[in-house]
Amino acid sequence: MSLPTRDACAALDAVDPLAPLRAAFDLDAADARGEIYLDGNSLGPLPRATPARVRQVLHDEWGRDLIGSWNTAGWITLPQRIGDKIARLVGAGAGELVVADSTSVNLYKALATAMTLVAAGAPPARRTIVSERTNFPTDLYIATAAAGERGFSVRLEDAGGLASAIGEDTAIVMLTHVNYRTGHMHDMAAVTRVAHAAGALVVWDLAHSAGAVPVALAGGGDPASAADFAVGCGYKYLNGGPGAPAFIWVHPRHTARMDAEGWRQPLAGWLGHASPFAFATDYQPGPGITRFICGTPPIVSLAALECGVDTVLAAEPFGGLDAIRRKSLALTDLFLALVDARGAGRGLAVVTPRDHATRGSQVSLAHETGGHAIVRALVARGVIGDFRAPDILRFGFAPLYTRFVDVWDAVDRLAHVLDSGEWREARFAVRDAVT
Amino acid sequence: MSLPTRDACAALDAVDPLAPLRAAFDLDAADARGEIYLDGNSLGPLPRATPARVRQVLHDEWGRDLIGSWNTAGWITLPQRIGDKIARLVGAGAGELVVADSTSVNLYKALATAMTLVAAGAPPARRTIVSERTNFPTDLYIATAAAGERGFSVRLEDAGGLASAIGEDTAIVMLTHVNYRTGHMHDMAAVTRVAHAAGALVVWDLAHSAGAVPVALAGGGDPASAADFAVGCGYKYLNGGPGAPAFIWVHPRHTARMDAEGWRQPLAGWLGHASPFAFATDYQPGPGITRFICGTPPIVSLAALECGVDTVLAAEPFGGLDAIRRKSLALTDLFLALVDARGAGRGLAVVTPRDHATRGSQVSLAHETGGHAIVRALVARGVIGDFRAPDILRFGFAPLYTRFVDVWDAVDRLAHVLDSGEWREARFAVRDAVT
Repeated sequence: MSLPTRDACAALDAVDPLAPLRAAFDLDAADARGEIYLDGNSLGPLPRATPARVRQVLHDEWGRDLIGSWNTAGWITLPQRIGDKIARLVGAGAGELVVADSTSVNLYKALATAMTLVAAGAPPARRTIVSERTNFPTDLYIATAAAGERGFSVRLEDAGGLASAIGEDTAIVMLTHVNYRTGHMHDMAAVTRVAHAAGALVVWDLAHSAGAVPVALAGGGDPASAADFAVGCGYKYLNGGPGAPAFIWVHPRHTARMDAEGWRQPLAGWLGHASPFAFATDYQPGPGITRFICGTPPIVSLAALECGVDTVLAAEPFGGLDAIRRKSLALTDLFLALVDARGAGRGLAVVTPRDHATRGSQVSLAHETGGHAIVRALVARGVIGDFRAPDILRFGFAPLYTRFVDVWDAVDRLAHVLDSGEWREARFAVRDAVT
Repeated sequence: MSLPTRDACAALDAVDPLAPLRAAFDLDAADARGEIYLDGNSLGPLPRATPARVRQVLHDEWGRDLIGSWNTAGWITLPQRIGDKIARLVGAGAGELVVADSTSVNLYKALATAMTLVAAGAPPARRTIVSERTNFPTDLYIATAAAGERGFSVRLEDAGGLASAIGEDTAIVMLTHVNYRTGHMHDMAAVTRVAHAAGALVVWDLAHSAGAVPVALAGGGDPASAADFAVGCGYKYLNGGPGAPAFIWVHPRHTARMDAEGWRQPLAGWLGHASPFAFATDYQPGPGITRFICGTPPIVSLAALECGVDTVLAAEPFGGLDAIRRKSLALTDLFLALVDARGAGRGLAVVTPRDHATRGSQVSLAHETGGHAIVRALVARGVIGDFRAPDILRFGFAPLYTRFVDVWDAVDRLAHVLDSGEWREARFAVRDAVT
């Protein structure tokens, strides 16, 4: 295809059905700086509705009504109420998903529970958790810790070697649906079927999926492809704010068994109890997914998260996640085409799959020098991506607020940074604490 | 002593050195309703500084500066910065305490680590966690879960039987410093010495202590009385907001050993890694207490918590926790004297110890009928305490904002509710979801 002009990109924005949703975000300061924010896969921007809602929680619910708000403002059921909203974004049913804790903590709950399920039914030889070598580190750390305590072990493979690594000794397949480094997206249904055929359970981390790509945890039209466990993050494409609470989903067949057999998950905190306010000495797990709640929920953060989730639900009248996915692919296609044309011969390689079926909502590039200085030079030019050690330049494309002209401008600036060689200046060699 | 009049209480307020600190709280609505808030031991009120600080985090740090705020606004070190402030309130050193997760989750980390320490050095017979039968349920639930996974068991005793229950088989003594039901306060140094003499470690839950009573985790003037682990809550006397993040402290002798031997705690999330942004496949615990951080910290909630902690630190020029403690005992002494005089013969019993040395900052009453309807009738009369099943009427006295006249008025209304018998009305028989 011929290379699109900036005008052609503006024309795409003019007919983009999701374009009106950008107004839901306070990107005023970034816009005033002429900045292009391609880091929503690390931290989604502030929804305009959030400050007023948080103010209401602070002044009216906490300040004015004090302790009574646990009842009158519905604080106590927020983890389920927001969970039901997120469930709509990941192909799960109402009452199957709760907001709680961090992704890391939820992963511990999910893995520990999955190991308990396996240990109760499978032969002792089935004690391996299979994951991807480049999975997000916290997933590997938590899995290693949880496995070691329970006589399980973790086996890491490259993405291409996963299918052949799943076998009779596999207890659990634990993967992040969209890889944080490469942007590679696994075929959730296919992997789940392979795992189930081998007798293993599947735990999915949806950190880079929820709100960005369609997910069918319950299998969509094919219940045989339904996953077992999932966790996910509130502060990326769900726009819940820095360090927003995370979520956990467990297939009803497992929670039904846990109900029937009275099983708990290891982080058996009081708000996962069937009757927390009975203050009983013995733990009786709450029904279904509610047992995965642990301590007292962080209400201010939950309120902000709900506003963020609402920005994604606002796309439902415009085609919802299918429309988000169409635009995401169009944005990343455009980025790839422009990078191919304007970045060629400058030491860049495209890391993210070009195949739509295996591409998430980001594009990662690698550079022969590592690339950190290029990311910093781009930031100085108002293109906000991030660097993932040792050699990934990462650009997230959040369809709710990223425009086609943003993609054009971003590559234009990338080309300038590379052509001018300004990224080699000493000021870009400094590392931040967080990059 | 003769019974104080309301005027005498007003005179006490007039000379109270902490009285000016009440202005730091937005109790305007409660004051306008003529309400007396005696539930700060469940949820501290809104500090006036909190909304502006949260607005700054939302608009300036998140909205305007986006991802850069992890560096520029110091988000990444908030768990330590606020931890250092809380350390000053609990007799710990800078760099020994971090804010993270919930009390329940932190307790799991503390207990699991303590069990690892015991298992590494003690004979296999030492596998019991001793706790109090009426300890807060989440502590018992988490302990039971964590113990069961590791071949340990939990033994529950009444407060009076604890010392004799601690013996050769005791691995850990886990107590809440101030009991949530009775308001009984353990002698932290004495219990710690008994436990250590028996070869056990001590884990303290400071939920009802931090910000309310002096705590000397490091032993104060007596390092031999230093505790081993502590966790605590941000939303009670620390005024951090509903579900505020919690904290965890570990004695440096244990974190030094963990450093030397490369040990991790089980919730080995990425932000407890020595170099999270190296994105290494293998977990290397961060130094000292930092390894007890797990997932990405909830920044908006942390900002609110810091404002709450600052309300307690604001007492430092006025005598700090010693002054808070003096006022707390004066308030609860007054409450007890008034209840003795005006509640006598109406089926009430005082549950909280009258001895200063064993009294926390609350007074619990029991009523022959259970008492839930009385708590509800009191709420209708503007006295906000709470009910703890099956039979505790609980009143918290937070010295930063509770006045002596509040105590007088509260007992006056309690006497009215009891004398009139209005608490027997059907409308007070209804139970809330949260009480």
